Amino acid sequence: MKNDKLLDLGEQGVISLFESLSKELPFPPQIVKGIGDDAAVLDRGDKYLLITTDTLIEGIHFEWRWFDPFQLGYKSLAVNLSDIAAMGGKASYFLISIGLPKKFLKESLRKLIEGIKTLAKKYSLSLIGGDTVESPKTIINITVIGQVEKDKILLRSGAKVGDAIFVSGHLGDAAAGLALLKKGLISQNPLFSQLALAHLLSEPELLLGQCLANTKKVHAAIDISDGIAKDLRLLCEASGVGAKIHHDLLPISDACYEAANLLNEDPINWALGGGEDYCLLFTVPKDQAEDIEKTVSAALNRKLYMIGEIIEKGDIYIDTAKGPKRLKVSGFNHFL
Amino acid sequence: MKNDKLLDLGEQGVISLFESLSKELPFPPQIVKGIGDDAAVLDRGDKYLLITTDTLIEGIHFEWRWFDPFQLGYKSLAVNLSDIAAMGGKASYFLISIGLPKKFLKESLRKLIEGIKTLAKKYSLSLIGGDTVESPKTIINITVIGQVEKDKILLRSGAKVGDAIFVSGHLGDAAAGLALLKKGLISQNPLFSQLALAHLLSEPELLLGQCLANTKKVHAAIDISDGIAKDLRLLCEASGVGAKIHHDLLPISDACYEAANLLNEDPINWALGGGEDYCLLFTVPKDQAEDIEKTVSAALNRKLYMIGEIIEKGDIYIDTAKGPKRLKVSGFNHFL
Repeated sequence: MKNDKLLDLGEQGVISLFESLSKELPFPPQIVKGIGDDAAVLDRGDKYLLITTDTLIEGIHFEWRWFDPFQLGYKSLAVNLSDIAAMGGKASYFLISIGLPKKFLKESLRKLIEGIKTLAKKYSLSLIGGDTVESPKTIINITVIGQVEKDKILLRSGAKVGDAIFVSGHLGDAAAGLALLKKGLISQNPLFSQLALAHLLSEPELLLGQCLANTKKVHAAIDISDGIAKDLRLLCEASGVGAKIHHDLLPISDACYEAANLLNEDPINWALGGGEDYCLLFTVPKDQAEDIEKTVSAALNRKLYMIGEIIEKGDIYIDTAKGPKRLKVSGFNHFL
Repeated sequence: MKNDKLLDLGEQGVISLFESLSKELPFPPQIVKGIGDDAAVLDRGDKYLLITTDTLIEGIHFEWRWFDPFQLGYKSLAVNLSDIAAMGGKASYFLISIGLPKKFLKESLRKLIEGIKTLAKKYSLSLIGGDTVESPKTIINITVIGQVEKDKILLRSGAKVGDAIFVSGHLGDAAAGLALLKKGLISQNPLFSQLALAHLLSEPELLLGQCLANTKKVHAAIDISDGIAKDLRLLCEASGVGAKIHHDLLPISDACYEAANLLNEDPINWALGGGEDYCLLFTVPKDQAEDIEKTVSAALNRKLYMIGEIIEKGDIYIDTAKGPKRLKVSGFNHFL
């Protein structure tokens, strides 16, 4: 039978099936956003409640060869907090559903919990529940519940033609770090440890998300989990717009260039499609861009990177040295 | 190194580590219940919000040899709804985090979604989010959000000495069904299909939980996921009491006896330690027991089974033909 496996359906095809399911079920007005943003949004009267869930699976999202348990614990919470950050919210509570092999070491579990604790303490999160099971491979699912004031929520769907597109950090570092970790090359260059850390211990942009939300000038936002080629497309689709990004404005670190040299890779590919950078991508009216940059610099001592602009609905283009090219979704696609 | 694996720590040991983590993190007054009941309870002003999460993993919780995708979808939601039922709540929203092998069939995914949909429609649930990943084995994590009126919530912790202990359905059917499925013996006896269904398509007790909550007479409740030997112990520990159950009052079906005969097993062991019955175990003051039975019979046309009584803090005893015996935790224990 042809074309009958998920392989052919692709991740978006699988998601579409769940979107259809959602449409066939009740959708009361308390649901402000269901599937299709970084977190679900429920109207709870005075505020919006944000709920997000993410799973890390051994062999798919991480390998013990290069992850230590502390890092895995940290990252398993970080990827969820990144979703709350993209909504401009504050994270409040979390639940852990963890599957562990029988032979998992107690000491490793203590370190994994230490990693979770370190990040949870940093953002004053409370652990309110979970589930513990035996599993052939390590699996960590975390659900985070957060909140945001109604007039401050950041959604994917508000981008407008003419908006400037910003990202909040280097692109491609995490992908470069993963490529080096896979080949055991981190020690080859003192710069490479920052790339490894970008993959292993990504920092969720909660403070930045809240800072951006407070400006009330951001039109749309998303976190970069799968690479901007895919995540910018999701933002554009949700907003009904297109985008043009400038090749020479992509913030790529020296370390990333060095790693690309060593591995004979194109750092632009890592920047566009590598994924797991977990910084924020957002759009603001062009005439507000400078104000936003100043606000973020003053509040968080952080630099932002303008990489392009929102255009009429159509496609996403990258303005290369050879002229504009349509940007393919080369981001990480499960099942493909 | 001796004693360094989770194997030696046991499931309760792992849970204890997460309980310790919870205690080291903030615990604001909005958290009515964290780890340690069927669902987390948050105070949202007018009502309590209930949140629960559960994971089903291929090879641990189910095998494709005897599960069809519809049943798996149904069950993955049912086990979560059972937790909401045990709190007396109404389930409102859910998120799905699903890991599927690349070679999973599209048609199977459609059937799995159909199973989820069937149960979600039955209880008017909305799907509000999720996450789709590739995975070597099928993994389904569901988070359910529900609510309950503040004066109606059922907790594990309210049992009082002298209370009658009830269960809401046959005990051991699911365990018997699983044993038969493993050996391919379902077709041996027309009675056995009800046992298979008890394992494959357990029905969450949402209506019963709400009915019990409405009486405001139930002192404590828990759902039977791991067998009463373990779940009654959890309820007793949370309430600071002991319990005595009567061997001859355990509701064991004829089908279960037949299966036990065929497989040369003791049906009492299935009833006490088999798990996955997903009915409710609850306690009520003895002088209210008859009223509760009448109320449930009138509202839901359901029979309840009184199996024992709450005694002073100490242990859990089963009153067998040979006199009282301490009840060992023979329920399902991950990692042991």
